[in-house]
Amino acid sequence: MQVSGERLRSDIEANAECGVLPDVEGHGRTVLTGTTENKQARDRFVRRLEDAGLEVRVDAVGNIVGRWVSPNADPSLAPVAIGSHLDSVPSGGIFDGPLGTYGALEAVRTLQESSISVERPIHVVCFTEEEGQRFGNGLLGSLVATGRMSVEEAVALEDGSGTSLETALEQIGYHGKGRIDAAEWDAWLELHVEQGTRLEEAGAIAGVVTSISGITHCYVDVTGEADHAGSTPMGDRTDALAAASELILDLESAANRIVSAESASAVGTVGKVEASPNATNVIPGTIRLGVDIRDVDADSMDALVAALEESVQRVETDRGVDISITQPYDIPPEPMAERCREALLEAGAATGTETLSLHSGAAHDTMNVARVTDAGLLFAPSRDGISHNPREWTDWDDCASAANVITAAVAKLAGA
Amino acid sequence: MQVSGERLRSDIEANAECGVLPDVEGHGRTVLTGTTENKQARDRFVRRLEDAGLEVRVDAVGNIVGRWVSPNADPSLAPVAIGSHLDSVPSGGIFDGPLGTYGALEAVRTLQESSISVERPIHVVCFTEEEGQRFGNGLLGSLVATGRMSVEEAVALEDGSGTSLETALEQIGYHGKGRIDAAEWDAWLELHVEQGTRLEEAGAIAGVVTSISGITHCYVDVTGEADHAGSTPMGDRTDALAAASELILDLESAANRIVSAESASAVGTVGKVEASPNATNVIPGTIRLGVDIRDVDADSMDALVAALEESVQRVETDRGVDISITQPYDIPPEPMAERCREALLEAGAATGTETLSLHSGAAHDTMNVARVTDAGLLFAPSRDGISHNPREWTDWDDCASAANVITAAVAKLAGA
Repeated sequence: MQVSGERLRSDIEANAECGVLPDVEGHGRTVLTGTTENKQARDRFVRRLEDAGLEVRVDAVGNIVGRWVSPNADPSLAPVAIGSHLDSVPSGGIFDGPLGTYGALEAVRTLQESSISVERPIHVVCFTEEEGQRFGNGLLGSLVATGRMSVEEAVALEDGSGTSLETALEQIGYHGKGRIDAAEWDAWLELHVEQGTRLEEAGAIAGVVTSISGITHCYVDVTGEADHAGSTPMGDRTDALAAASELILDLESAANRIVSAESASAVGTVGKVEASPNATNVIPGTIRLGVDIRDVDADSMDALVAALEESVQRVETDRGVDISITQPYDIPPEPMAERCREALLEAGAATGTETLSLHSGAAHDTMNVARVTDAGLLFAPSRDGISHNPREWTDWDDCASAANVITAAVAKLAGA
Repeated sequence: MQVSGERLRSDIEANAECGVLPDVEGHGRTVLTGTTENKQARDRFVRRLEDAGLEVRVDAVGNIVGRWVSPNADPSLAPVAIGSHLDSVPSGGIFDGPLGTYGALEAVRTLQESSISVERPIHVVCFTEEEGQRFGNGLLGSLVATGRMSVEEAVALEDGSGTSLETALEQIGYHGKGRIDAAEWDAWLELHVEQGTRLEEAGAIAGVVTSISGITHCYVDVTGEADHAGSTPMGDRTDALAAASELILDLESAANRIVSAESASAVGTVGKVEASPNATNVIPGTIRLGVDIRDVDADSMDALVAALEESVQRVETDRGVDISITQPYDIPPEPMAERCREALLEAGAATGTETLSLHSGAAHDTMNVARVTDAGLLFAPSRDGISHNPREWTDWDDCASAANVITAAVAKLAGA
């Protein structure tokens, strides 16, 4: 039983045309939820599900599921679900999400063409807004599918210009009905690019994830005094950007300290900065920072948040700015289910694919699914570890090998 | 001879309705060149010039001039010009610009109503895009009026979305013909708010400017590596925002050092920061900083630019980022003409208004005009020194007193 690497490549390449960034080096795309580019990507995915004979359902937050019941399967059994997402960060790469989404479809097509019969139905899933770039803070579709956010709350989320998720999904024809419920799945598998260099360094093709790092997002709002850059003497300033710069460097130092002393997998990032009024000749009056803190160890995450709070207090005292922190998003580290890990490791052995057990520093919808059913996550290598970037790359042979592993694993879980 | 403080107030208040920010504390407005708000403000100003019998001309970059020739004046003599600007920074105040523009008109109306006769024509001027918030880097109208930028170059300038100044001015009906030539003026005076606290601290009402600080704008482009915030270990990062934060703090330190040791009037500001991709869960790949450096002492400006360049070299070495600096805008310090300063000081004495001689840390169109004719600049007090901010404020009595001083000075210069 072998996937068609050519078919998988052709699907991922065609998907990459949606939101393509033709003028940047590499293979870039921007696909935000509810945009024209997102509609194009979704429409194509649905057509490909239907081409393969899957029965398609779209729920109220735009999650897409294609259901396949093998001729010999029992439709009353709980299905095994596999999938990922199709949205991207701004100027993202072409594999982050699509490899797992089309890899899941390729697994079903491969099973359809094989002589293997499986007992359970298989669901191919595309979750909405995994990247959290337009609505909410990420993993949105799986938050709803696992009951951690209500449909009502989710569809009311608004983007920066006040458009709700409901309106955006209606505009592209993907505001369906009801809620896909991940708790009804017997097991879940996701294939994703590693977004790190451990597979590459180990010369392994498939990474079997042991645990997914927890993730905390903080917004840090710094309020100083917007004032004239020319006529305000240095001694009379309350510069929000200079204050924010200290916070940024303090967080970086604290993360480096924790990496050396406590937990090598801890990371702290200020990924977003918004200044107001943001004019060269005006001292910045307010700055909002978007902070991302992660680790597989919950204690070190807490230590990083505490270090940020300490830095805030110091900078408030030293500079006379007001700083507030909100923490809209906080997910604890999540271990993967043993039977899913074993299925993936056995599948690696059965397909002759070298595997490596490793943690995931990146968040994935699998984090949410793992709370309601047995879940597993498989990584394919990322060249130079680059991701969320048009230079993200996974060799096509590696895509096919990893898809072979997940196909064998899903067959096993589905009772082949 | 007394200006009408009520008439001046009513003009400034009516102008403040254009681009008003109703939901912020204070009296805020946003009036960017070529916008609907700018058209409203310009239309109203032109009506008021015409109400007072002035002959209005608009040039190819949208500079507006109202010409008044007193019944006893010689129209062949070089005029005395007075004025300021009507555009604002985003979320700016209501006095920065409009006080001088409507103060100039009020001076003419007061002369019209007085028994004083003047020999020279008087021109009331509104320069385009003083604040440099949409096209170019500021002082745009006076750069063209003084021949330091050609009309062709100016009208081809584009905003962030690719709209040219020419198109924007055409859209609001202010793309006139030819070029208003400041070199033809016998003298120039501008009334402006101080945007500092020296008048307030001295208890003086009118500040006679001795010299205007030079101003250098730099763009600093920091290029790191955009990468996944969760899966990129701390040791593998090239974070453009952390690098930029060091530059911001280094510039602040260097400015403080120069203030202590060399020149108390030196200032260095990072007013603008733009990150890409600017998402909480992505390590920033590129950062652009907008830097503003000023002083009345050219040597200390050079020292601050040199300190910035040193910081860039250190941060490039320490962090492996690439940093480039461009310096699109560099105007040397500009002393005011002695006969204009004397006219203003004498006008203060004649109107019983306490004056203070002081430098200007803020750039003004007067900097450009001073290169081609005799120029003077008068300040009215700014409460708490706050400017470029909805909390900018000048008491109405102080507006009237300062307008009286500039009226008496323009009468003197025009040969009363």
